[in-house]
Amino acid sequence: MLKTRLTERLKLRHPIISAPMAFAAGGRLAATVSAAGGLGLIGGGYGDADWINEEFRAAGNQRVGCGFITWSLRKQPALLDLVLSKKPAAILLSFDDPAPLANRIKERGITLICQIQTRRDAERALACGADVIVAQGSEAGGHGEKRGTFGLVPEVADLIAKENPDTLLCAAGGIGDGRGLAAALMLGADGVLIGSRLWASKEANVSDRMHAAALAATGDNTIRSQVMDLARKLDWPPRYTARVLKNRFIERWHGREQELLTVADQEAAKYRKAWADGDPEESNTFVGEVVGLIHDIEPASNIIERIVREAEELLQLKSKQLEQGQ
Amino acid sequence: MLKTRLTERLKLRHPIISAPMAFAAGGRLAATVSAAGGLGLIGGGYGDADWINEEFRAAGNQRVGCGFITWSLRKQPALLDLVLSKKPAAILLSFDDPAPLANRIKERGITLICQIQTRRDAERALACGADVIVAQGSEAGGHGEKRGTFGLVPEVADLIAKENPDTLLCAAGGIGDGRGLAAALMLGADGVLIGSRLWASKEANVSDRMHAAALAATGDNTIRSQVMDLARKLDWPPRYTARVLKNRFIERWHGREQELLTVADQEAAKYRKAWADGDPEESNTFVGEVVGLIHDIEPASNIIERIVREAEELLQLKSKQLEQGQ
Ligand SMILES: Cc1cc2nc3c(=O)[nH]c(=O)nc-3n(C[C@H](O)[C@H](O)[C@H](O)COP(=O)(O)O)c2cc1C
Ligand SMILES: Cc1cc2nc3c(=O)[nH]c(=O)nc-3n(C[C@H](O)[C@H](O)[C@H](O)COP(=O)(O)O)c2cc1C
Repeated sequence: MLKTRLTERLKLRHPIISAPMAFAAGGRLAATVSAAGGLGLIGGGYGDADWINEEFRAAGNQRVGCGFITWSLRKQPALLDLVLSKKPAAILLSFDDPAPLANRIKERGITLICQIQTRRDAERALACGADVIVAQGSEAGGHGEKRGTFGLVPEVADLIAKENPDTLLCAAGGIGDGRGLAAALMLGADGVLIGSRLWASKEANVSDRMHAAALAATGDNTIRSQVMDLARKLDWPPRYTARVLKNRFIERWHGREQELLTVADQEAAKYRKAWADGDPEESNTFVGEVVGLIHDIEPASNIIERIVREAEELLQLKSKQLEQGQ
Repeated sequence: MLKTRLTERLKLRHPIISAPMAFAAGGRLAATVSAAGGLGLIGGGYGDADWINEEFRAAGNQRVGCGFITWSLRKQPALLDLVLSKKPAAILLSFDDPAPLANRIKERGITLICQIQTRRDAERALACGADVIVAQGSEAGGHGEKRGTFGLVPEVADLIAKENPDTLLCAAGGIGDGRGLAAALMLGADGVLIGSRLWASKEANVSDRMHAAALAATGDNTIRSQVMDLARKLDWPPRYTARVLKNRFIERWHGREQELLTVADQEAAKYRKAWADGDPEESNTFVGEVVGLIHDIEPASNIIERIVREAEELLQLKSKQLEQGQ
């Protein structure tokens, strides 16, 4: 058992939170992660009340939380009330300034998790009273920014120690096994938030073809790009890009953003159709660099248990070996 | 004392190699690092026989190695003979295909270190018989590529385990203190290669103004760019960019690469003058995201000792705390 400030304060068995992956992380995945001893989050994504209601229902009696894309939630504030009324275990906000939504979450006594991409964002999250800061590095699957996990985590740990030491810290981006969990704890995190590795689970809402594309890829095969958001006509602030597998769609459009904008109407329709079909070539497989460590689609509970067991072994055995030079 | 396969095979007290930083890492820094128990490398950089001779002299009797920029060394193969004749502790090759230079190093029985940026590069380094692979993540200062340290290191560790388990692995990019060393060991590395944190030492050849600029920066203030190489008219293969502090020069040219090419002759002269003056605004301060963890310019031996002591404490104490939930 790995006990950290995160497991104590959030009353978890394991210091693992599952990422609120838009589309992929429904109630089934979130509930499985919570049942396995972590904290499962439903991917509220761009915000669709019917979908969210359905996924909270699917989570049944398990305590789960929900994550939102901040700039999108800000346009439909009623959605926050809907989720607050479900007394979620936590709400995660990511991408853009968490104020003033943060206040409404704190007022209700709900655990506020802010996922951040820069030191500057972390300062803002602290000012907004985040209970947990998730420092997301560039290797992460899905949307994110440029800073790497390895340097961002300790820098934010130092900032937290200085500004508000009660705040908890999780690392995100590149964590696929027990090595990643153990390393994150060494860097100063109290736990980890895991996306891609749980996306590659039986409980995730992912097409078989996208899962197959990920299993065939190495970590070299991903790229950060904006073309999928231009094609989908989503209003992402330009600082964010999404990490996906390189594919035909990326080859066609990456680097030709201006041209894509001029044909976005047609492309949007084509993209949405390909996405609905689960097509890994004409839409996108959202997954991180950690794809190079993923060789099976497994039940999420197996993934969680193995990650924790491996990290425990590393921390117990390897630290002894290192001391004794074995 | 942290004992790893690296300390055993290379007969070091500490699992730390100093980066062969062009211009900044001369004989004094390399010798100090070796004397402190690590392996110091002189930054052979683009290759200048007089400078290299002088720096090996400055290293005195300490056993040090030397690093080269592979694509540049390939144009002046006599330089490799010069360094081989000095019986260096190791030669590091980075940036572009290490063959056929690798063979000439191996033939002489010299330890071959290949610094790589992708899994694909690691496959090539294994094929070339590298004794040590340095997996360099994107957070690194100076030249590099896109993959992050956190995912690259375990992926290369798995590749090594499969292809040639005798090969040693070091992590590079983002290591600034004991947390970074401990995390790298957890990710599967046998040691670390450290650049920026030793660049910020008394023994590095760095202008006071550039040191001051780095101390004032956070990890958010760096960027990867190609404009300095265009302005210097250096033939870097386009896959590589350099991480530097954002400054006036970057603001002026980043994103305007085509225009810069048309005025490169004038800009080259201006850039070289500013560089010679140690000007942090009109040339570049090469430093990594770990700059956010650097608050002092210290003797390199203090830096090495503190990193090792912190890592030991983390591995001993923290792993116990985690088990006991303290
Ligand atoms: C398929 C997918 C969808 C994602 N969607 C979201 C999202 O809607 N909101 C969010 O905050 N993060 C999202 N993320 C990012 C995760 O929150 C997390 O930062 C990331 O997955 C961590 O890196 P990893 O993928 O290496 O584990 C997504 C990630 C993936 C892989
Ligand atoms: C000032 C500076 C100059 C560098 N020059 C070289 C070089 O000439 N050859 C090389 O292989 N790497 C060079 N690097 C990269 C380092 O080898 C190493 O990968 C990097 O410093 C590790 O990341 P860190 O800076 O976060 O420690 C340089 C790095 C810095 C900071």
